[in-house]
Amino acid sequence: MTHLPEKLLDGYRNFMSGQFQAQTDRYKQLAREGQSPETLVIACCDSRAAPETIFDSGPGELFVVRNVANLVPPYAPDGEFHATSAALEFAVQALKVKNIVVMGHGRCGGIKAALDTEAAPLSPGDFIGRWMSLLSPATEAVVNNTMMTPVERQTSLERISIRYSLANLRTFPCVKILEDKGRLTLYGAWFDISTGELWVMNKETGDFERPEAL
Amino acid sequence: MTHLPEKLLDGYRNFMSGQFQAQTDRYKQLAREGQSPETLVIACCDSRAAPETIFDSGPGELFVVRNVANLVPPYAPDGEFHATSAALEFAVQALKVKNIVVMGHGRCGGIKAALDTEAAPLSPGDFIGRWMSLLSPATEAVVNNTMMTPVERQTSLERISIRYSLANLRTFPCVKILEDKGRLTLYGAWFDISTGELWVMNKETGDFERPEAL
Amino acid sequence: MTHLPEKLLDGYRNFMSGQFQAQTDRYKQLAREGQSPETLVIACCDSRAAPETIFDSGPGELFVVRNVANLVPPYAPDGEFHATSAALEFAVQALKVKNIVVMGHGRCGGIKAALDTEAAPLSPGDFIGRWMSLLSPATEAVVNNTMMTPVERQTSLERISIRYSLANLRTFPCVKILEDKGRLTLYGAWFDISTGELWVMNKETGDFERPEAL
Amino acid sequence: MTHLPEKLLDGYRNFMSGQFQAQTDRYKQLAREGQSPETLVIACCDSRAAPETIFDSGPGELFVVRNVANLVPPYAPDGEFHATSAALEFAVQALKVKNIVVMGHGRCGGIKAALDTEAAPLSPGDFIGRWMSLLSPATEAVVNNTMMTPVERQTSLERISIRYSLANLRTFPCVKILEDKGRLTLYGAWFDISTGELWVMNKETGDFERPEAL
Repeated sequence: MTHLPEKLLDGYRNFMSGQFQAQTDRYKQLAREGQSPETLVIACCDSRAAPETIFDSGPGELFVVRNVANLVPPYAPDGEFHATSAALEFAVQALKVKNIVVMGHGRCGGIKAALDTEAAPLSPGDFIGRWMSLLSPATEAVVNNTMMTPVERQTSLERISIRYSLANLRTFPCVKILEDKGRLTLYGAWFDISTGELWVMNKETGDFERPEAL
Repeated sequence: MTHLPEKLLDGYRNFMSGQFQAQTDRYKQLAREGQSPETLVIACCDSRAAPETIFDSGPGELFVVRNVANLVPPYAPDGEFHATSAALEFAVQALKVKNIVVMGHGRCGGIKAALDTEAAPLSPGDFIGRWMSLLSPATEAVVNNTMMTPVERQTSLERISIRYSLANLRTFPCVKILEDKGRLTLYGAWFDISTGELWVMNKETGDFERPEAL
Repeated sequence: MTHLPEKLLDGYRNFMSGQFQAQTDRYKQLAREGQSPETLVIACCDSRAAPETIFDSGPGELFVVRNVANLVPPYAPDGEFHATSAALEFAVQALKVKNIVVMGHGRCGGIKAALDTEAAPLSPGDFIGRWMSLLSPATEAVVNNTMMTPVERQTSLERISIRYSLANLRTFPCVKILEDKGRLTLYGAWFDISTGELWVMNKETGDFERPEAL
Repeated sequence: MTHLPEKLLDGYRNFMSGQFQAQTDRYKQLAREGQSPETLVIACCDSRAAPETIFDSGPGELFVVRNVANLVPPYAPDGEFHATSAALEFAVQALKVKNIVVMGHGRCGGIKAALDTEAAPLSPGDFIGRWMSLLSPATEAVVNNTMMTPVERQTSLERISIRYSLANLRTFPCVKILEDKGRLTLYGAWFDISTGELWVMNKETGDFERPEAL
């Protein structure tokens, strides 16, 4: 019996003989001194859009939250369990990151589910339905716009949702205060799986533009 | 004014000229056909333990949830927002992954916080405190064991928490049913940042062992 | 007194010593045999988006209608003067073109005017207001969507309006009949002035994609 | 299936590697700052007489209306849709062009249709017939003059129609007022496809003369 999928074990061996070999000291230092990443990335679980891959980042660089559709719920100190809010709090308050990047991507299954008004719940708990309903106000802005194609509605909501999550981030007192003090900066980005293009949100206008074009 | 940290833009340019260049067709195919990852990895947000790095995995391989301390809450269809449960549901029900790996790591800040009974809340919302309390039953098993060193308590809870999350995974009907049918397999792993060692959980005994030893 | 702006005269002299010199025979032939362009392009008057420039086309290739926002009104045999419908009829019935391309572009002043609900008429006749009202059903689809940025609303309407004009083209019996017979093909394209990118409408989906990506 | 005629795609690629490459900054500037063309050209749709080609003009130089036979209808604020009047209004009122050039050409199909009194309507809507009837008063001046050859009648009407359109331009209050103030100048020109000659209208006499002769 195997205790880990063979593919993962093979990959791990590549890591050991490759990146770990090359950065042994860096890993030892990170273990000794602890992590102090400058950036929190809130990304999607999607297997095609890993932040470490897209930003070619090494150990210790990115503190990464990944949930379906890279959503940030509004501040709600209600004593419930909040995976994303807890990670946000840890990154901002304990690690004191300087940047927060909300990174969305094209062809997002979560966004697709949010736009599919006739979809049946995936399970009795319907966790996905509930989770994506976080985005309802944004979803309503495009879901019934039949002048746009399905792909246009999807891309539009993917981008609206990034701005929406950035707005929710600012409902957290610790984020708002530090941003106002200039000690924390918020960013938005959208990754196109097909072309590999990274569209960066213009902070002035909210539009997504390609770095080449900036 | 910059719209993305320069370091990330530089990394992105490396990605484009490197991995994306090398795998353009793969990305195009993944965009066209959608993702069908075989494995869901539930990992920690820690900047030193990215699954794609440790498993040297390419685009489309891993569907990744990352929250503080790679926790899985018990099944709770209570209509609340559950980031992790939603991602789990999506991976299992919509993407039909074959494997779920709960991957912890050494020197986990979340586990450290769970063991620090005198720590003050990081924020009025105390999201981290609430989040880590998911682990209370496990925490109680070691937190007051003064016969263990702090490092031993930490490592012990890191591993207990992985088994605990695997147990919570099985409270989700969809996971339990598919596992019983042999269509879904659960795994545990623990990464040692300092040595780069990946300790894999022996499914028979629950012990964590090094692959070389398997 | 000058009878033509000096800049135009200079440009004309360049044309004579350049392109005309190089294509004298072609011009003579086109004069002798008459024109038989294969393509009708319905484009905008915008000074930054001339079809002959963007398609690098020579004499005799493109029959070009240019009005504000490259609109096609619906078929209306009401005995009024219809500049666009007349040109369409001439291209399809008399010249028997094989292709019709509706070409829009970014930053279109006409589309901007359509979205500016508070704009005052430019003149007592308010010809622009009336003209852009041709697009009302499409405009309503985005004008009040405040979740999109102004630029997103503009781009979205620019693209919707191309599909809308293509739909209006099909209200002309001569277009519908020839298209059904496979003797006439309709296309949509959108030009990005800033990047020079030409986004081509996918006839299956209506989405605009870059040729590189097709 | 192709989404744009291959010939146009090829031409576009030439444009990108040629003129756009050479004028990237100019296009970026035109996108950023918007267009401010000095000249409005009212030209014919004819594939052999593109203003940008004949005047060898670059991006941002000419705001171009193109309809059959480069006609300008008289001012008629009747609430109907007027493609040409709308473009005229936009060029003069919004863009504040300094020059308006009505450019005709030899062998014009629209003029030929106007002179062919026995021609059957091209379609039930007979849009061309209606459109060319705008020129009736001018047409009547030559259509029955059997002392002129067909070619003479054609060329004569082509030139009369340019003066006629210039007269109609002056029925638009905004044009009349600005011309009287010396802030707008009107011009006429006629292009000979066969010889490439541009005949410019002498504003004093109304005659068409070759620049070399001016």
